[in-house]
Amino acid sequence: MSPTLTTSNGTTHIVNGTKVSTSNDTKPKPAELDASKLIITECKTLKPIPPPEGLVYGKVKTDYMLVTEYEPKTGWSAPEIKPYGPLSLDPASSCLQYCPNVFEGMKAYLGPDGKPRLFRPQINMERLARSIHRAALPSFNTNALLTLIKRLITLESRWIPNLPGYSLYIRPTVIGTRTGLGVAASDSALLYIILSPTGPYFRNEAGGSETISLLAVSEHVRAWPGGTGGHKLGLNYASSFLPQSLATERGYDQILWLLPEPNGERKITEVGAMNFFVAVKREDGDVDIITPSLDGTILPGVTRESCLHLVEAHSSTSNSFLIPGLPATLRLHAIERTVTVSDLENWAVEGNLLEIFCTGTAAIVASIGRIGLDGLSETAAVKNRELVLPESEKMGPIAKGLFEALGAIQTGRLQYDNWSVVCS
Amino acid sequence: MSPTLTTSNGTTHIVNGTKVSTSNDTKPKPAELDASKLIITECKTLKPIPPPEGLVYGKVKTDYMLVTEYEPKTGWSAPEIKPYGPLSLDPASSCLQYCPNVFEGMKAYLGPDGKPRLFRPQINMERLARSIHRAALPSFNTNALLTLIKRLITLESRWIPNLPGYSLYIRPTVIGTRTGLGVAASDSALLYIILSPTGPYFRNEAGGSETISLLAVSEHVRAWPGGTGGHKLGLNYASSFLPQSLATERGYDQILWLLPEPNGERKITEVGAMNFFVAVKREDGDVDIITPSLDGTILPGVTRESCLHLVEAHSSTSNSFLIPGLPATLRLHAIERTVTVSDLENWAVEGNLLEIFCTGTAAIVASIGRIGLDGLSETAAVKNRELVLPESEKMGPIAKGLFEALGAIQTGRLQYDNWSVVCS
Repeated sequence: MSPTLTTSNGTTHIVNGTKVSTSNDTKPKPAELDASKLIITECKTLKPIPPPEGLVYGKVKTDYMLVTEYEPKTGWSAPEIKPYGPLSLDPASSCLQYCPNVFEGMKAYLGPDGKPRLFRPQINMERLARSIHRAALPSFNTNALLTLIKRLITLESRWIPNLPGYSLYIRPTVIGTRTGLGVAASDSALLYIILSPTGPYFRNEAGGSETISLLAVSEHVRAWPGGTGGHKLGLNYASSFLPQSLATERGYDQILWLLPEPNGERKITEVGAMNFFVAVKREDGDVDIITPSLDGTILPGVTRESCLHLVEAHSSTSNSFLIPGLPATLRLHAIERTVTVSDLENWAVEGNLLEIFCTGTAAIVASIGRIGLDGLSETAAVKNRELVLPESEKMGPIAKGLFEALGAIQTGRLQYDNWSVVCS
Repeated sequence: MSPTLTTSNGTTHIVNGTKVSTSNDTKPKPAELDASKLIITECKTLKPIPPPEGLVYGKVKTDYMLVTEYEPKTGWSAPEIKPYGPLSLDPASSCLQYCPNVFEGMKAYLGPDGKPRLFRPQINMERLARSIHRAALPSFNTNALLTLIKRLITLESRWIPNLPGYSLYIRPTVIGTRTGLGVAASDSALLYIILSPTGPYFRNEAGGSETISLLAVSEHVRAWPGGTGGHKLGLNYASSFLPQSLATERGYDQILWLLPEPNGERKITEVGAMNFFVAVKREDGDVDIITPSLDGTILPGVTRESCLHLVEAHSSTSNSFLIPGLPATLRLHAIERTVTVSDLENWAVEGNLLEIFCTGTAAIVASIGRIGLDGLSETAAVKNRELVLPESEKMGPIAKGLFEALGAIQTGRLQYDNWSVVCS
């Protein structure tokens, strides 16, 4: 079932091959989200911009936010850009009680021309529309939202740090605001966008490890068939907090999420809040870049899709694009399939396991150095059986090349299709 | 791992058999939740009380709410009873972004002596402590919370409708208020309690059906082994909104949640937001009252546990308690086990399927009249294969007896152990 992107009281008929919309004239149609109705309320004073080097991910907010409300009778209100500040919410609001909350993660980058750029924003808009449908929230025209995001970014462009690896994080959020306690879909909503200047997601000590460590966990399961793991719903995240703290206690940076299979295998789904990739040497010398298939338990990440695409482009006959640092003669194959913990162990034993990395909007690409294989069953005092990657402290060449390629495209230093979209 | 109910900077040692707490004197200990610090801010004018017959579940709120905040340095603030009104929340708050939100559902009933009563509140407090732990929220002393609930109910007792089947619904809620966008546990929180006068959850037309209908759904799965279905987290609920609307379109009241098993069987987990029960006639003439085991996918409902207990009590040798309307000679057996859709079909074919009902704080006990067996695969236009109960329009005698027994105990008309607790 495809998401409905517009709200309508009317019905659509096919008359002589032409779509005719018949609305009930006695009921006014709820208003669509309309970027042309934008109201801007200016801040009296602007905040000082903190030095980028000290930024903690997602802590500092910019001067403005964008807000629009949906009510069933009136539809979407005129969007407003106004000073960043608290929301006023009824304590019975659905967003606090039953969590029909969705969000997107995007970034604005400063190009060499000084213009702010978005990275493949249309994919975020399409995913947001699917999330909205899954959470049964009021739908809206995502083209209008994208126009509003560009307008907000243009207004706030002084907040984009002009430093490699830094950007302005964009968090479009939609929350259910129905105030009845009966368990039912929220027929009212608040859509807002907030911005936060941000640097590298994982900060390592100077001269320290370039990689992160994972603990493979199957005692807690992030997502399952028939669940919501394939959508960007806020409710997918809080269940990770407890296992994440247990992994931290045991000395691991993030969780490798597993789904136990009926045959006893432990299927790999995601890493923390990122997609999982493994690079495996083949008998013919080529390299398979493997990521779990989008079976409904995996978030269809924009960076995931972009990495698969760039891997294919590197090995295409035209050779018009090469992943930085990798030889043109190295053939890479992008593969979506099931990956289990046993697969990793077997590839390691055979000497074919080259790299493991993960991708996401926040971290872009992060290399994995080691994986604790025994989950939470071992106490922190007992050493977990570990899979240690060949270069466990350094970012692998494939991960590093993808990271650099994406950074070049995102900041407009490298033109690639229409992936980088200037805000104007 | 058992939940930590108190927050402490110190460590606890056993010295000569006595627990001694050693706190770090340089850091002040965050304050515990302390009911004796209660502040009451009175309303200037009180709301008029609407006629109970027109109440929609969870819509009307009373005059007051109770609020207390947790900050890592200072701990729990002095709890405050103040006029019901909106919360002020940062747009980046964890509760809106990642959903570490938990709640409880309880009710206050008016006894024949005019005093408000709670039903087994200690079970709610224990479950809340487990939910708080699972959502990695700051913990608190639930005895202090129960004292505060009783104080709020006493203040608001004029809102408890004095009508059979009516009560004052109590919604303790804890939400994460951390404002960083990094995916991490919320180290700050807001705890609040709101109240709503309420009548029967399912309203039927006068003279209409006393039962509800279910659509058995396995395309969407509510809970999974290793997931959070066994805890009362807000994030378990929003994923039901879309499938519920599809079930409504197909003419069914609620969803019968299924978990597909590796062997192809469809295991029954819950009904909507309620626990599932089936009454099956045995060869020896006794009746098994069966509900799914608490395997981590099932919410340990207070009404569920109470029904299992009353079923056992009815058949105990002392015969000091009988379920109203059931003969003393009828032997009932409370059984927790796996139940599949095939089990229901087989029992129906054999003529042994007596009743299906569901239990929860809101509805107490609701009888099921029919179950659509083919899930969402059929379109609304095609008739679903249905399992129709022998008395499909009337509440079955076992469900009705349990409903009446619970009502009598909850309102203090029947003394049963210490299940009904007077607020004073």
